[in-house]
Amino acid sequence: MGKRQVYLEDIPLEEAVARWWAALEEAGATAPLPGEPLPVAEALGRVTAEAVWARLSSPHYHAAAMDGYAVRAEDTRGATETTPLRLRVGTQAIPVDTGDPLPPGTNAVIKIEDTQLIAHHASRKSLIANRLSQVAARPSSIEILASVAPWQHVRPMGEDMVASELVLPANHRLRPQDLGAIVGSGHTTVSVRRRPRVAILPTGTELVPPGSEPRPGEIVEYNSIMLAAKVEEWGGEPTRLPPVPDDFEAIKDSVATALDTHDLVVVNAGSSAGSEDYTADVFRELGQVFVHGIAIRPGHPVVLGLARGKPVMGIPGYPVSALLTFDLLAGPLIARWLGQPAPPRPLTLQATLTRKVFSPAGEEEFLRVAVGQVEERLVATPLPRGAGVLMSLVRADGLVRIPRFSQGYDAGDTVTVELLRPSEAIRRSIVVIGSHDLTLDLLADRLAQHHPGLRLTSAHVGSLGGLLALQRNEAHLAGSHLLDEKSGEYNVDYVRRLLPGRRIVLLGFVTRLQGLIVLPGNPKAIRSLDDLTREDVSFINRQRGSGTRVLLDYELKRRSIDPRHIQGYERQEFTHLAVAAAVQSGTADCGLGILAAARALGLDFVPLLEERYDLVIPAEHYESELLQPLLALIRKPEFGAAVEALGGYSAAQMGRVLAKLEEDGNGGTI
Amino acid sequence: MGKRQVYLEDIPLEEAVARWWAALEEAGATAPLPGEPLPVAEALGRVTAEAVWARLSSPHYHAAAMDGYAVRAEDTRGATETTPLRLRVGTQAIPVDTGDPLPPGTNAVIKIEDTQLIAHHASRKSLIANRLSQVAARPSSIEILASVAPWQHVRPMGEDMVASELVLPANHRLRPQDLGAIVGSGHTTVSVRRRPRVAILPTGTELVPPGSEPRPGEIVEYNSIMLAAKVEEWGGEPTRLPPVPDDFEAIKDSVATALDTHDLVVVNAGSSAGSEDYTADVFRELGQVFVHGIAIRPGHPVVLGLARGKPVMGIPGYPVSALLTFDLLAGPLIARWLGQPAPPRPLTLQATLTRKVFSPAGEEEFLRVAVGQVEERLVATPLPRGAGVLMSLVRADGLVRIPRFSQGYDAGDTVTVELLRPSEAIRRSIVVIGSHDLTLDLLADRLAQHHPGLRLTSAHVGSLGGLLALQRNEAHLAGSHLLDEKSGEYNVDYVRRLLPGRRIVLLGFVTRLQGLIVLPGNPKAIRSLDDLTREDVSFINRQRGSGTRVLLDYELKRRSIDPRHIQGYERQEFTHLAVAAAVQSGTADCGLGILAAARALGLDFVPLLEERYDLVIPAEHYESELLQPLLALIRKPEFGAAVEALGGYSAAQMGRVLAKLEEDGNGGTI
Repeated sequence: MGKRQVYLEDIPLEEAVARWWAALEEAGATAPLPGEPLPVAEALGRVTAEAVWARLSSPHYHAAAMDGYAVRAEDTRGATETTPLRLRVGTQAIPVDTGDPLPPGTNAVIKIEDTQLIAHHASRKSLIANRLSQVAARPSSIEILASVAPWQHVRPMGEDMVASELVLPANHRLRPQDLGAIVGSGHTTVSVRRRPRVAILPTGTELVPPGSEPRPGEIVEYNSIMLAAKVEEWGGEPTRLPPVPDDFEAIKDSVATALDTHDLVVVNAGSSAGSEDYTADVFRELGQVFVHGIAIRPGHPVVLGLARGKPVMGIPGYPVSALLTFDLLAGPLIARWLGQPAPPRPLTLQATLTRKVFSPAGEEEFLRVAVGQVEERLVATPLPRGAGVLMSLVRADGLVRIPRFSQGYDAGDTVTVELLRPSEAIRRSIVVIGSHDLTLDLLADRLAQHHPGLRLTSAHVGSLGGLLALQRNEAHLAGSHLLDEKSGEYNVDYVRRLLPGRRIVLLGFVTRLQGLIVLPGNPKAIRSLDDLTREDVSFINRQRGSGTRVLLDYELKRRSIDPRHIQGYERQEFTHLAVAAAVQSGTADCGLGILAAARALGLDFVPLLEERYDLVIPAEHYESELLQPLLALIRKPEFGAAVEALGGYSAAQMGRVLAKLEEDGNGGTI
Repeated sequence: MGKRQVYLEDIPLEEAVARWWAALEEAGATAPLPGEPLPVAEALGRVTAEAVWARLSSPHYHAAAMDGYAVRAEDTRGATETTPLRLRVGTQAIPVDTGDPLPPGTNAVIKIEDTQLIAHHASRKSLIANRLSQVAARPSSIEILASVAPWQHVRPMGEDMVASELVLPANHRLRPQDLGAIVGSGHTTVSVRRRPRVAILPTGTELVPPGSEPRPGEIVEYNSIMLAAKVEEWGGEPTRLPPVPDDFEAIKDSVATALDTHDLVVVNAGSSAGSEDYTADVFRELGQVFVHGIAIRPGHPVVLGLARGKPVMGIPGYPVSALLTFDLLAGPLIARWLGQPAPPRPLTLQATLTRKVFSPAGEEEFLRVAVGQVEERLVATPLPRGAGVLMSLVRADGLVRIPRFSQGYDAGDTVTVELLRPSEAIRRSIVVIGSHDLTLDLLADRLAQHHPGLRLTSAHVGSLGGLLALQRNEAHLAGSHLLDEKSGEYNVDYVRRLLPGRRIVLLGFVTRLQGLIVLPGNPKAIRSLDDLTREDVSFINRQRGSGTRVLLDYELKRRSIDPRHIQGYERQEFTHLAVAAAVQSGTADCGLGILAAARALGLDFVPLLEERYDLVIPAEHYESELLQPLLALIRKPEFGAAVEALGGYSAAQMGRVLAKLEEDGNGGTI
């Protein structure tokens, strides 16, 4: 007995789309939607369903384009400032304001600035006042100081548009100027394509509504909010149907009902087992399935069908998969219904990949990357690849497509990035890499608050990873808390070793408390590292090489505590939060970590040790224009105060230059 | 006495903006707007007013990432397909579905595909059904066919986000994935910046509402619709106030009332004289004016002030000026209120200017251009420059900024075009240049209907201008109706003369009727060209060199009619519509023109002559992929039928190759 077949098919994206569209086209389900009349003022962003033809010309008469006098151009020939010509007002020169109809027999306007009154020297303003009040104390003659050509300073009838001409073709997305042109050409309504109606049905017994306090195994349903927002962005009209548990009949009923009033029904299967099978079976019972399983990653278990003459689509439950497949498959369909070309290809740029990415052959992968510009070099750092890591899409600056028959890319390869943000935003991003700390998040928010458009993007690769990234010129600065076990000094030794020959500024940031994470109320009354050797106390450790582990071992040694006497010293977790989770679940009585991790799970915290978390900044970046707003912000006392208000931090060193390393390796703690 | 001073100032754009912003900043009027809580599902496109911090971790427990069995990774070491290992179900291997919490003591999941049941061989589906129905007919043991590493196929707690971490900073415009992340991190509402409220007040006694039949001197008010749409696009909340006539007190009252409830009040002065003066005076009475008159074109008479602590802005009445100045001046302010950086600089491209553009030094000009790609070359054709020609903004593909101290550009100069359309749209544009005809508009609409994304853009430069444009490789095809007076043949002789050495296809398009445009009912009973010499009939002519004039002279000669006997033969107009307008106004009894011009003004038409209007297409374009959809459309009988249904046209030659000219000048009528 071999491995079990899980998906019906595993076909390339292009082929899946082609197969589905062929069926939809045959069923007439891809025709642009009909028009509906709409008041022009409400039609921004809508798409014309038919051409708009001008009903009126604009201007609809020959109009004066200046304030002055309508004249026959021939009468002005030869006039200059030194040889003015005199014209009789009322017959040879008829006063006109901008926009007035040109009196019959005249064919040009002479600007008021090019005339002189003869009868009396009124100021321009009083002249205007006279005109407007129709009190005609007009001069009987004027002198003109310049000649005009025929039709000069005249807006001829139809200059803007001529009745019967094409104002806008069909299938045009309306912009502000288009609305003006439609009204100007004599219309008050415009026929626009009906918005495509898309029903989104979340399914899954594990789903709970937004705002719930989910229990283990429960998932807060938010995919439908994202998918509805996508539909809105595309110009469609989304309906979020109430979630349905994993029940064949219930799903079938909901899909069938939605088909009556929608153009597309999307079933967003829960991530639990068998959900997609229900979707496919429901579609088969109501119609046909053409595709079940596409060779893309994330996003594999997609179902594409046709039911009651309308397209139906099943997309996977993981949020990244859901959004990506919806984008790829529903986007073009909605564009077609709106008479629009396929969504434009995103802008791309070439960047250097910072890490090796292995991708299983056979699936096209959509890798999310953060892109940073370090000096003139663009670097793309892969973000977490899990289909459930929505933050990878929130943080992503772009996507790298890894083709189906590629095994991936090596670090240093040049890759094409499809941008998800304007390249301007990338140019204005400060890339911080290394160990993560909550205060960096605070800094990122403050930067966005005080300097709109300037961004702090952070990648969490640990302190050592951060210094290595600086070595490869992939970041502007790194957050680091590397304790040298020999010197007991933070970061300086590591920087010397890993960044030789570089000018580096070590900038003080925070001193943070590490402590023991314990159950609420600290039932075992754990007070110090010495308590770890108690027989009734079990411990959960961090992985070897992590800063917290280095700190623990350093302190144990200093205190002559033998790790072999600590129950659980060999059990290790990879994050602060995992340590807290182990304590919460009762697997261990305590673990070493930071206050924030304890707080995140509502646990108690016994502060024990201080560690320094510095910013390591190559001098060229420290001195760059890009970083100055950040440095200024760090040095504001109010930022330090906000950091300390978080609890668990001291900001005493914040913004101080702790060391300056020169190219020759000299320099050091100041 | 010198020329009169019309504007208070004439200062460069940057300086005007700087002066105004300095005053606004001092008054605290540029601070980002406060936040308001909004349900997440309604927050697409809104901007965060404060950071969003995760309240929950996601996942909030260690979750199985696959359907299969939760195991201790250590127990699976060494298992392969050929050397399977046996695990006891319930103790060593606990069945889990994707999303289930990982049972305590386990640290990995082995995929169901990598296992074999021992007790009985159930299909996967029945296994799933069993699980879901909680009927536990479970095997007592499984064989595993692969080993797993610790945490493999597990989504560790916090993989996506960790409670307390930053989900989104302030001043972030919310996208679909952001909405998901906010809900996933435990929130149901989000604090977003209040929408900036912008009041738009049209002023001018000449204004009439949309849908009116305007009389000479009246203007349909549509600027407020365009400006409101702009505000909407920027994320603000526009209020279109009822238009106010040119009355100081009325304007003042309306502005003062609007200031109570809006962040910005914009007075859109009518184009008639003195309107801006009212605006400036109103602003002065309610507050202060900092700028009155900016050195840009179009757009000069701008008023920038501050009243009751809020910015006020007066913008000119011509639609292009209104939209352009509003874009330049209000756009950045609204961005600032929303905590956004200044609107991103538009994408640009370099193109070759097709015509000389003279620009008066001292003003920065924003020239609208159509951009076409002819083979690999990008060409920018200036559009009409009048501030009243809104269609120039509708048709524009981009703007060329002519700096303040430049005199303009020469034909052939390379210019930087700020794009108003995606460059994709430009690449997919068929550029037709030459004489304009209504049927080209019909063709443009049909093309947009049947080939979304493909565009026909036309520039109207007359038949001769079109052939010259082809000579310079500035268009894909030209519409031409050039009658050779000697041969009586259309176009061929001109093409031979103007495009020597080029392979050209002359494609039949329409034969159109020229006739005499007369008053409704044809009161003077004008029936033929012979009637033009009647003593009671006056004529209005077209300008020398126009196709219609050539046709008239050719026919008069053929009929031996002496032009000197035609009253008004020497009076000339430049467009069909101007001829019709002259007839309508009674200046002349008749003029030669096309049916559409007569119809546009509700006049009668006496059909007299036929003329051929062909498409002149260089062979390389005729054979190009770009043009094939157009050629196919032209050859569809239904298009010919639609053309004939317009009236005044015959489509008998439509789509026929009338002549093919080879490089050696050979070839000719087929």
